[in-house]
Amino acid sequence: MERGLESMEAIFNPGSVAVIGASDNPGKLGSHVMRSLIEGRFPGRIYPVNPGKNEILGIKTYPSLSEVPDAIDLSIVVLPAEQVPKIIKECQNKNVKGIVLITAGFKEIEDKRGEILQREIMELANQSGIKIIGPNTFGIVNLHLPLNASFTPEFSLVEKGGISFVSQSGGMSHLMGFLSLQNKVGFSKIIGLGNRCNVDFAEMVEFLTKDSQTRVIAMYIEGIDQPKRLMEVARENSRGKPMLAYKVGRSFTSDKASQFHTGSLAGKHAIYEGALKQAGILMVESSEDLLDAAKALTLCPLPNGNRVAVLSGQAGPGMAACDICEMEGLAVHPFSAKTQKRVEQLLPPLAIRTNPVDMGPAWYDSEAIKGIVQTVLQDENIDAIILCIMFASANRSAVGMLADLLLEKRRNKPVLCCFSAPAGIWDDEIRRLEESGIPNYPTPERAAKTLVNLFRFKKLRN
Amino acid sequence: MERGLESMEAIFNPGSVAVIGASDNPGKLGSHVMRSLIEGRFPGRIYPVNPGKNEILGIKTYPSLSEVPDAIDLSIVVLPAEQVPKIIKECQNKNVKGIVLITAGFKEIEDKRGEILQREIMELANQSGIKIIGPNTFGIVNLHLPLNASFTPEFSLVEKGGISFVSQSGGMSHLMGFLSLQNKVGFSKIIGLGNRCNVDFAEMVEFLTKDSQTRVIAMYIEGIDQPKRLMEVARENSRGKPMLAYKVGRSFTSDKASQFHTGSLAGKHAIYEGALKQAGILMVESSEDLLDAAKALTLCPLPNGNRVAVLSGQAGPGMAACDICEMEGLAVHPFSAKTQKRVEQLLPPLAIRTNPVDMGPAWYDSEAIKGIVQTVLQDENIDAIILCIMFASANRSAVGMLADLLLEKRRNKPVLCCFSAPAGIWDDEIRRLEESGIPNYPTPERAAKTLVNLFRFKKLRN
Repeated sequence: MERGLESMEAIFNPGSVAVIGASDNPGKLGSHVMRSLIEGRFPGRIYPVNPGKNEILGIKTYPSLSEVPDAIDLSIVVLPAEQVPKIIKECQNKNVKGIVLITAGFKEIEDKRGEILQREIMELANQSGIKIIGPNTFGIVNLHLPLNASFTPEFSLVEKGGISFVSQSGGMSHLMGFLSLQNKVGFSKIIGLGNRCNVDFAEMVEFLTKDSQTRVIAMYIEGIDQPKRLMEVARENSRGKPMLAYKVGRSFTSDKASQFHTGSLAGKHAIYEGALKQAGILMVESSEDLLDAAKALTLCPLPNGNRVAVLSGQAGPGMAACDICEMEGLAVHPFSAKTQKRVEQLLPPLAIRTNPVDMGPAWYDSEAIKGIVQTVLQDENIDAIILCIMFASANRSAVGMLADLLLEKRRNKPVLCCFSAPAGIWDDEIRRLEESGIPNYPTPERAAKTLVNLFRFKKLRN
Repeated sequence: MERGLESMEAIFNPGSVAVIGASDNPGKLGSHVMRSLIEGRFPGRIYPVNPGKNEILGIKTYPSLSEVPDAIDLSIVVLPAEQVPKIIKECQNKNVKGIVLITAGFKEIEDKRGEILQREIMELANQSGIKIIGPNTFGIVNLHLPLNASFTPEFSLVEKGGISFVSQSGGMSHLMGFLSLQNKVGFSKIIGLGNRCNVDFAEMVEFLTKDSQTRVIAMYIEGIDQPKRLMEVARENSRGKPMLAYKVGRSFTSDKASQFHTGSLAGKHAIYEGALKQAGILMVESSEDLLDAAKALTLCPLPNGNRVAVLSGQAGPGMAACDICEMEGLAVHPFSAKTQKRVEQLLPPLAIRTNPVDMGPAWYDSEAIKGIVQTVLQDENIDAIILCIMFASANRSAVGMLADLLLEKRRNKPVLCCFSAPAGIWDDEIRRLEESGIPNYPTPERAAKTLVNLFRFKKLRN
């Protein structure tokens, strides 16, 4: 195995981890990192390193890395910046394969010494082929091992799934993690690149394209030092795993701020955006859009065209979905004559029976709702379906029945749902649907916006 | 009291309610209405009317309205459409003050008879001055009484608050209710106007401008029959309660659909939108925006200008907020010299100390964070603050400390927060802040978008 790849593999799937700067003082990051490993049920061996302690959180502790009586795959480092070069050398002597360098105080600070220190550790690491995630990162999480190599034990609450998130901001990683808890989205890996001393977007994305537990690669970008390398990697993957990115710096102030934050040239947002799109990366506009689109890309087939059917249990939410679809380039397209005839047979002559269909009058007739959805699933004039039902006591059974139908009929078109209810009512049905490739969203507009993004992605791929 | 107003008052604050078409069969809407009243703890007297029953859900039941031995303030009607004219006459004979007419099958159906029937009941109601909410409505909810006069008992889960929501779609009312549960937003009244036979937006809004429990009036609009009357009412209220609206029909298909759905002329979205704005109504673009903006308008002072400070515990989320602010007309404005100096004293020379401020390096120094927020609160160059902190174990106490500070310092500028954490961690602090006028949002972008809407509303009012 190539040295860099071996190092990355060791970072995400280590058998043994040393925590250099481990602590049991809750005021120190070293204590949070220890809790992340332990509470996150890391299945490998943990070696805290701290010269002043014999034991931390019940685990035998060593005065230095060299005294650890085992080979170390991954070192997590939380010591102050000025001690880091010495630690990197110790890691080299110990043949440590990879490093997560949480410590801040490098290229991101105003003081020139930070940049000098970062160059020093980068050169050290490159000499020996060790990959360093960071410095100035919250860490990394691999929910499949599981490994929580971060200073936030709560990342272990995130569900296991197919999305890997690569982020230039720890804050944005935390936000995405917490949003995923509310939206029941599963992640494979959550990665804070920090100052990217020798692992930048390009290397990380390349690694993830080959990682069997990653199905979709989502990015949060402020600025990129080597945009061409990322474009190359993306183009090489242009028929592979879906890639999408949320880039800030669209406004002047935020663009300027990103230059400070990660010590990288940001700027020229429009140029970046165009280049990333050309490389086949879907660009989205907010943290919610990123999560929503990543979820759909993990679950759904892509639409073959822009013709969408909007089927709703109540007219209003259906109209809200239509608005978004049509304003963003999708067509709420007429059904085939056969489908239209069938819908008219099934629905009483109340209200809207053309696309969008208001299925409200059929609430008490589950066979009618079933028949409508089934016929539209088979309509060759329709590339995708948005299905919205707002709970009312009288339609409680509708979503379970639709779930059975949708899961039974094999389909090659995306179905995006907005089934909205108080907590606890449709949770099981929604989970069943999502596990089988039919995502649910909290509002009709978000379901529609996500379908728009699926269609944009399909166009990028063509 | 004027007759119409008395009728409206009786609808929302009745002492006695008759349910005409009450049932204990869960397949009938009449059973859900009964459950809504009972489970919603309506404090007045409930009289089920059903000729085939002596008792429904433990409550004595009468064969007809005329046999009810009490005066009736509100009748909720769920009988089939063709029986409704007779029922309206019975209500008149009984001196019932107001009606919620849930029954569908009127102007909204393709069959001409629906329109004729609706005209008939409208004329009957107008003769006697009775106000009818509906037909074709899910009902109304007054969370302050409490009264749940709808077919969805779960509306009683919504918290009591200052927003009254007037909607042309029952589906959108349910969506807003369920979103409010997740977002902890309180409502005063949730009102389904249905086919608006003799209560349209104008009458309802006029009533709500005088309702002491309503502080903000939020609307969902498809089409309006008498737009001029609504504009007049809005203009008369132009210094009063904030009013905001989400109007669908921005796209061709949805515009056309709305004509069918509520049997009203929709169309000409741009004209409507301009006219509503001119009348002082804030127009928003999605169900989430409507909820977010209504919440802020209930809680916050308006910004005096467009100069916003973005203070964040991590740089990334702050940049995301800056992007939205600047793209939508707010200025992330330089601090006064005094503020800038103070921020530099408080923060180490790491990263961003100008606006936006990355307070990350001060995580362990709560006095510094406190000092920064306090000095920016007092800066005359700044009209509003967005404050974003993503939870990490190491900053758990930050939000409690900031809550104390924000609540202690009297302020006249809006502070909008995005404090994001797994459920259960900051819930108490966030609740404490929101109860005192500082709203929290799930993402930095939504906090920023809401501030944009507050600023737009301020401009409408000027």
